[in-house]
Amino acid sequence: MPSKKGSSLPETPHEKANPEAQHSDSFFTLKWKGDIDGTLLLLDQTLLPYQNVILDLKSPQQVMDAIVKLAVRGAPAIGVAGAYALCLATRDLTNSSDVRVRLKEVAPSVRNCRPTAVNLATMVDRMMNLLNSEAAASLEGQKLRELLFSEASRIEREDQDYCQRIGLAGASVIPNGSTVITHCNAGALATAGSGTALSVVYQAWEEGRRFQVLADETRPLLQGSRITAWELQRKNIPVEVICDGAAGSYFQRGLIDVVITGSDRIASNGDAANKIGTYSLSTLAKAHGIPFYIAAPSTTFDFNIQNGTQIPIEERPEEEIWSVVGKKRPIGNIKYGNPAFDITPASSITGWITEVGIIQPPFEEIR
Amino acid sequence: MPSKKGSSLPETPHEKANPEAQHSDSFFTLKWKGDIDGTLLLLDQTLLPYQNVILDLKSPQQVMDAIVKLAVRGAPAIGVAGAYALCLATRDLTNSSDVRVRLKEVAPSVRNCRPTAVNLATMVDRMMNLLNSEAAASLEGQKLRELLFSEASRIEREDQDYCQRIGLAGASVIPNGSTVITHCNAGALATAGSGTALSVVYQAWEEGRRFQVLADETRPLLQGSRITAWELQRKNIPVEVICDGAAGSYFQRGLIDVVITGSDRIASNGDAANKIGTYSLSTLAKAHGIPFYIAAPSTTFDFNIQNGTQIPIEERPEEEIWSVVGKKRPIGNIKYGNPAFDITPASSITGWITEVGIIQPPFEEIR
Repeated sequence: MPSKKGSSLPETPHEKANPEAQHSDSFFTLKWKGDIDGTLLLLDQTLLPYQNVILDLKSPQQVMDAIVKLAVRGAPAIGVAGAYALCLATRDLTNSSDVRVRLKEVAPSVRNCRPTAVNLATMVDRMMNLLNSEAAASLEGQKLRELLFSEASRIEREDQDYCQRIGLAGASVIPNGSTVITHCNAGALATAGSGTALSVVYQAWEEGRRFQVLADETRPLLQGSRITAWELQRKNIPVEVICDGAAGSYFQRGLIDVVITGSDRIASNGDAANKIGTYSLSTLAKAHGIPFYIAAPSTTFDFNIQNGTQIPIEERPEEEIWSVVGKKRPIGNIKYGNPAFDITPASSITGWITEVGIIQPPFEEIR
Repeated sequence: MPSKKGSSLPETPHEKANPEAQHSDSFFTLKWKGDIDGTLLLLDQTLLPYQNVILDLKSPQQVMDAIVKLAVRGAPAIGVAGAYALCLATRDLTNSSDVRVRLKEVAPSVRNCRPTAVNLATMVDRMMNLLNSEAAASLEGQKLRELLFSEASRIEREDQDYCQRIGLAGASVIPNGSTVITHCNAGALATAGSGTALSVVYQAWEEGRRFQVLADETRPLLQGSRITAWELQRKNIPVEVICDGAAGSYFQRGLIDVVITGSDRIASNGDAANKIGTYSLSTLAKAHGIPFYIAAPSTTFDFNIQNGTQIPIEERPEEEIWSVVGKKRPIGNIKYGNPAFDITPASSITGWITEVGIIQPPFEEIR
C-alpha cells in the first residue's frame, strides 16, 4: 500500500504536496507522467480535503492498493487506473513474450480488486483483448508496449470526452433556482474528466442557471462531505452537506427538486449499482415524486447481466464503520455490516444520462 | 459545561470512573445521590463506549449543559433530568419565597434547552404546577423543597414503570428468528428505566425468543453504534451496526422483519418526531411492507398539537457533521445542515407501543 512510512512494499510511491491543487480550482484525479516508461500520478483522495498529496505509482500492486484503499475511486477513474496498471506491469520488459506472461499473471488481480464497478473489468479486458489481437501478434516487445500504452491513453481520453458529453446531455434536468441532491462523489475525482453526475451540475452552472447542491455525506467513507463538497466549493457552486439520514427530511419539506447520482454498474434492464445509500435516496425520491437520474458513460453498462441481482456487492472492512467512534474497536460481541454498494431498481430511475443522451431501457443506442 | 479542564463554570462536576459499568451489564443513566440536598449523578453518554464516566451535577446550569451536549439524552431521561434540575436549583435556599423566585427564574431555560422532546417541557411544567398548587401554597421552605423532590422522584419511578410496561405491551411484535432494526438509542440510556424500543427488545429476549438487532449507527452523533450496540452486547443480544444509508439494502434483500424506534414527541394525530433518519427508515419500511412501531410512554404524546408540522425541530451545530472528517472545518464556502430530528407521519406507523398497550389514533386510552 502506498503509505508514507514503514511500508513493506518493494516500491514506495513518491508522495509530494500538490500546491496547484491547494491554491486553485484545478486539480487532477490521475495522469500518466513521462513516456512509456513513466509512472502513474494519482491524487490521494483519502487525505482530502485537508491534504493534497500526489501518489507516484510504479507498479500494478501499488495501483491495486490505491484502488482498494480508495485513494482513487469512482467507476470511470478506476477503469483508467486499471488500464495504466497494466502498462506499469510491463516496465523494464524488453521482449514480447515476457510482456505477455507478465500481463497474464497480473491482469486477473487488477481486474477483480474491486468487484462492483464494471469499468475496471471492462478496461482490463479491453487491454487484454488488444494483447491477444491480430494487430499485436507480431509486435516486438517495445512496439507491443507502445500499442498497449496508446490504448490506455485512449481509454483516458474517451473517459474525458464521455464526461463532457454526459454534462451536455443532462444539464437541462437542473432548473434555475432548484436544489439538486447527490450521493457519494460522481465528480471530476471519480473520472479522468469532469465527472458524471457532477459534470451535469458543472454544465448547468456553465449555462448560467443558478441552483444549489445538497451532498449526502456518504458514510462510511464520507466521499460527499470530503470530496463532493470540496469539488463544488472550488467552482463556487453553493453546496450544503447533510447526513445521509437527513435526506428524507429535506424531501419531506419539499426542499429537493432533482436527484442525480453516478453508478458503478448498470444491468441490461437498467438496475444500477451505486454507493451504499443510493437505494434509500431513490426510494425517497419515488415516494415524493421527485425525478431520479443516473449519470454514467456507456462503459458502465454491463449487458452481460440481466438485472441488478447479478451485480456482486463488495463488503468492506468493519473498521470503516467503527473507526469514527474511536481509534479502537468497541469491546463486546458487536457485528458491523458494511456493504459498499446497493442496487437502485430501474423502476425508480427517471432517466440514464449517458454520453449519447438521456436514454431508457433497452438502451439500443449503446448496445 | 461539565468538562474536565479549563471550565469557566462556577462549579465543576465531580467525575469518576464507574467500574461497575465497566465490568458488568448493569449501569445507570441517571440517579439522585443523597438526601434532598444531594446531587444528580449522570453517566456521560458522550464518552461511551470507551469510557464510563459519572458526572456529579450540582446546579441546573450543569444539567442543562449535560442535556445540550447530550451527556444525557432520550426524551424520557431528559424529562427526569429536568425535574431534578429544578431540585438542584433550590439547594441552600431556606425560605419558600426564595425557592419560588429561583424556580421561576430557572424553569424556562431548563424547559427549553432542547426543543423537540416534549417530556422535558412536560416535566418542568409538572414541577411548576405543583409549586403553584394549593398543596404547596402554605409550605415553609424546607417542606416545599421536600414536596418538589418527592415529585421528581415520582417522575423517575413512573418512567421506570412505564418502560417495563412498554416492554410487556410490545414484546410480541418481535417473532422468534426475526431481525429487528432500530435507530438512535431508545434504550435504558434514554430513560430512567429499561428503555422504550429496547425495553420491547429486552422483554422479547426475556420471554425466550431469539432474534437479532440491526442498529443504524445514527449520524451525526452515532448513538446507535456507540450506545445501542453497547447496551445490547451487555445483554448478549446479537447486534449488528450498519451505516444509516445501508438500511435500504437490508430491506431490499428481505433481511428486516420489524422496525421499532422511540420518539421525542407524538402529535394528536400520531405523527412522531424522532432522531434524524427515522423518517427515511419509515419510508423504506412502508415501501417494503414491513411493520414500523414507535415505542414511547404516554408522557411523549403532546395533545396540544394537531400534527407533526407543529413540532419544533432542533438544528444542531455544524461541527457534529464535519468533525468526523477532521479536527478543523474544511476550507471553502460549504454549508452543513444538521436538523436533529424528523417527523414520521402517522400513516407510516403500524402501532404506538405505550405503557397501556399498543394503541392507535385518536389514542383515547391516554388522553
